[in-house]
Amino acid sequence: MRILGIDPGLAIVGWGVLHYERNRFTPVAFGSLQTPANTPTEQRLATIFEDMNGLLEKYKPDCMAVEELFFNNNITTGIRVAEARGVLLAAAALKSVPIFEYTPSQVKQAVVGYGKAEKRQVISMVTNILKLSAPPKPDDTADALAVAICHAHSSGSRLADYFNK
Amino acid sequence: MRILGIDPGLAIVGWGVLHYERNRFTPVAFGSLQTPANTPTEQRLATIFEDMNGLLEKYKPDCMAVEELFFNNNITTGIRVAEARGVLLAAAALKSVPIFEYTPSQVKQAVVGYGKAEKRQVISMVTNILKLSAPPKPDDTADALAVAICHAHSSGSRLADYFNK
Repeated sequence: MRILGIDPGLAIVGWGVLHYERNRFTPVAFGSLQTPANTPTEQRLATIFEDMNGLLEKYKPDCMAVEELFFNNNITTGIRVAEARGVLLAAAALKSVPIFEYTPSQVKQAVVGYGKAEKRQVISMVTNILKLSAPPKPDDTADALAVAICHAHSSGSRLADYFNK
Repeated sequence: MRILGIDPGLAIVGWGVLHYERNRFTPVAFGSLQTPANTPTEQRLATIFEDMNGLLEKYKPDCMAVEELFFNNNITTGIRVAEARGVLLAAAALKSVPIFEYTPSQVKQAVVGYGKAEKRQVISMVTNILKLSAPPKPDDTADALAVAICHAHSSGSRLADYFNK
């Protein structure tokens, strides 16, 4: 199963593609899409749509995993993230890629084993689980890989549940 | 000048196309795009992208006008509106349609002459200005026409400013 993990944002979209089979992960590719700050929002959203299409066409994931959106302190940033997230979800749905959403605590639980883990613990575990030589940069890329790992674990256990019925 | 006004939403996108020339408005077409509630969000966003593309191709607007997004009471609804809004902005930007944003009070000021006007006053003035036989339904369609009228006035006065220099 090939999973595309996405960490949405207007300035930076973290992404990571994992192959997952029989409890083993193979990182296929990962990185970030970035849009310049001095560009109108709609141009940045259009670029995100096109770049996301590029990822979907290049890596042909079986599914996409993404965190549910929660608002923190900054509502203006939250709106921009939600607008970018909408574009990313639409791009995947237009290519019939199934989308799975997880809460931040589900991702932390799956990756670190503790739903209230610190960000640096998540990054460290992602690096270990995927046997990377260094933590992925920027953090958005590590977050994207984390939600992909979360989906792999979750779908693995769903499958286990199925066979254990 | 052919203006596409858009009132974003996940369940209902209000839209209206106006022709504006020498201070005269001609409504070209207006309506709403609606997505069924019992459908996954990403499918609804994909439908909005496709239907918006349909509007852009059919009516070939010179520009698009949309309200800036402010969060009211319901943050969850706000996130959904922002996601849909991102899709609509990206769709227009991908077709190189220039986008102009106005605050709710700018729209009310332009349509009613009073920045704190009630919603029903806005709808009533939209109906009068466009010489419609009845108020456009749903309200989202009236709101879309209102922001299109706002852009017409704004760009008209910008032009007037230019010639009066």
